[in-house]
Amino acid sequence: MRCCHICKLPGRVMGIRVLRFSLVVILVLLLVAGALTALLPSVKEDKMLMLRREIKSQGKSTMDSFTLIMQTYNRTDLLLKLLNHYQAVPNLHKVIVVWNNIGEKAPDELWNSLGPHPIPVIFKQQTANRMRNRLQVFPELETSAVLMVDDDTLISTPDLVFAFSVWQQFPDQIVGFVPRKHVSTSSGIYSYGGFEMQAPGSGNGDQYSMVLIGASFFNSKYLEFFQRQPAAVHALIDDTQNCDDIAMNFIIAKHIGKTSGIFVKPVNMDNLEKETNSGYSGMWHRAEHALQRSYCINKLVNIYGSMPLKYSNIMISQFGFPYANYKRKI
Amino acid sequence: MRCCHICKLPGRVMGIRVLRFSLVVILVLLLVAGALTALLPSVKEDKMLMLRREIKSQGKSTMDSFTLIMQTYNRTDLLLKLLNHYQAVPNLHKVIVVWNNIGEKAPDELWNSLGPHPIPVIFKQQTANRMRNRLQVFPELETSAVLMVDDDTLISTPDLVFAFSVWQQFPDQIVGFVPRKHVSTSSGIYSYGGFEMQAPGSGNGDQYSMVLIGASFFNSKYLEFFQRQPAAVHALIDDTQNCDDIAMNFIIAKHIGKTSGIFVKPVNMDNLEKETNSGYSGMWHRAEHALQRSYCINKLVNIYGSMPLKYSNIMISQFGFPYANYKRKI
Repeated sequence: MRCCHICKLPGRVMGIRVLRFSLVVILVLLLVAGALTALLPSVKEDKMLMLRREIKSQGKSTMDSFTLIMQTYNRTDLLLKLLNHYQAVPNLHKVIVVWNNIGEKAPDELWNSLGPHPIPVIFKQQTANRMRNRLQVFPELETSAVLMVDDDTLISTPDLVFAFSVWQQFPDQIVGFVPRKHVSTSSGIYSYGGFEMQAPGSGNGDQYSMVLIGASFFNSKYLEFFQRQPAAVHALIDDTQNCDDIAMNFIIAKHIGKTSGIFVKPVNMDNLEKETNSGYSGMWHRAEHALQRSYCINKLVNIYGSMPLKYSNIMISQFGFPYANYKRKI
Repeated sequence: MRCCHICKLPGRVMGIRVLRFSLVVILVLLLVAGALTALLPSVKEDKMLMLRREIKSQGKSTMDSFTLIMQTYNRTDLLLKLLNHYQAVPNLHKVIVVWNNIGEKAPDELWNSLGPHPIPVIFKQQTANRMRNRLQVFPELETSAVLMVDDDTLISTPDLVFAFSVWQQFPDQIVGFVPRKHVSTSSGIYSYGGFEMQAPGSGNGDQYSMVLIGASFFNSKYLEFFQRQPAAVHALIDDTQNCDDIAMNFIIAKHIGKTSGIFVKPVNMDNLEKETNSGYSGMWHRAEHALQRSYCINKLVNIYGSMPLKYSNIMISQFGFPYANYKRKI
C-alpha cells in the first residue's frame, strides 16, 4: 500500500500525460526533419533542368525558343527584308518590332496582306524615338531568351542556331557576335573601343569586356533589371541616344560577378546599311559616336561606384562548320 | 487508496521512465535535424570558391598551377627534348615522368647534372609497362590541375597558357586539344572515330563526345575516380594496353552529367614521333588500334550499363591570337 504515499497523481495518468506530450514533440521533430530532407538538393539537378522547372511552374516562358526584338527607325525597307529572313529561323517564337517612326503608322496591314507568316510579328508603336525603347519589358514576350538585332544587321541562320545553343549553356551571359572592350589609362580614365585598341594585360592576344546587344542572345529577365536601374542611367542613355548596350553589359557583369558576355565568332554576318533607300545611315556614323561611348563608360563607373566589366579572351566557334574548320593534328 | 489497485508500478517511476525514453528520442531527432540543416547548400556558393576553400582547408593543392604528367616508353630522346620545352611553361608546378622502361634506370643523374631546372621533375620507375600507370594517384601531385601529355606531343606555350585559363573556368571538364567522337549505328553498336566519321544529329557541322587526355588539362581528383572504377575497366585497359582515355571520358561524363570535355583549337601543336632515333613509333600504329577503341566503347557501355558520353560542338579559340584572327564586321 506504499504507492499511494509516493505517487502524487495516479501513476498511469501521469505516465500517460508525459507520454502524450513526448509523442507530440516527437511528431513535430519528425515533421521538421522531413521538411529539411525535402530541402536537400537532388545531386543530379543541373542548371537547365532547374530553370525549366521554375519556368514551367511560372507557366510562361521557356528555354527552348527565343523572341526577336528589333528596333527600327527610318529603314523600313531593310526591316522588311530582314524580317523575311528572320521569321524563318528555327526556334523563333515571336518577333517584336519596336517601331520608332513616330507619327508614321506601323506596317501591320502590309505585313498581314503578305501572310501567312511562320510566327507572330507584333509592331509596337512608340510615343517617342528613344534608343532605350527596345529594352522595355514587353508583355508579349514569353521566352527566357531574347534575340536582339539591329535593323541593319543580317545574321545567317547557322550562326543564330549555333549561338542560341551556346546561350542555352550560358543563360546568364550575353551570347553574341560583336565584342568590344574598355581600356584603362594611367589617369584612371577609361576609353571604349575594339581590336584597334591596346590589348589589356601582359599575355598574348586581345581581350573583350563587352558583347554588344544589337546582335546577341540574352536572358529576358535582364530587361526587368534594366528598368530597375537608377534614373541617372536612363537619363544618360536618353541624353546620348547611345550606350544602352554598354549599360546592359555593366548591369549584367555587376550581377553575375564575371564577364558579361561570350563572343561567338560569326561565320556569315553582314551590315546592310548601304543597301537602304532611305538615305539614313545609322547612329554610329555621327561624329561624336565613339567619343560618346567612352564618355558613357566613365559616367557609368561614376554612377555605379566601380568598374564591373571583366575581360575575357574566349572565342567560340562551331566545331566542323564551315566544313573542316579543324584539321586533325595528331 | 484506490491508486494502489490501478497503478501497476509506482506512478512517478513509470512517468520517469517514459520521460527518460522520450527525452532520448527527442535528442536523437534534434541531432538528425541539425545534421540535415548543415547539409543544406549555401545559395551564393560558386564552384570555384568552393573548390578553393576545400583546397585551402586540405592545405595541399591549388587552382593556380598545374602538374605535368608524362608517361614514357622507349623514346627518351623525345622525352628529354620535350622536357626542355615544358619545364619553362608558366604556372607549371612540377613534372611527374612515369617511367615505363622497365629494367632501365630513369635518367635522374643525367637530369640533375644538367641543372638547375625551373621546377622539380620526378621520375617514377614503374614495375610493369602498363598504359594506365599514368593514372595513378601520385603522392607528389599537389595541384588541382593535371596537364597530361603524350611523350611525342609538342604543344606550344601560348596554347598551354590559354588552355589552362580555360580549364580554370571549367575545372570539372577535360580541356584539351584532341577531340574524338563515338557514332551510333542502327544495330546499337558503337564505333569510335574523328572528323572522318558521320556527324551525329541533323544540324550543321560536326560534334565530338570525347577529349583525349594525352594533350589536355583535367582535375587531379579524376585520378582517384579512375582508381575506384570496377576491376573490369582496369582489366580492359590492361588487356588492350589502350583506351584509358576513353574510360576517363566515360567516368567524367557519367559524373558531371554533361559533355566530358571542351575542345580548344590548338594553334601550334605537333607530333614528334618521326623525330625519334629509337625506331619506336607509338601504340596508335598498331594494326588493331582503331578497332580496339571501338571495341572498348562497346565494352565500357556494357560495364557501366549505359552510354554516358554527350556530344558537343563548342570549339574554343583565343580571341586575337594569332593576331587579327577575328575581323571586325559591324
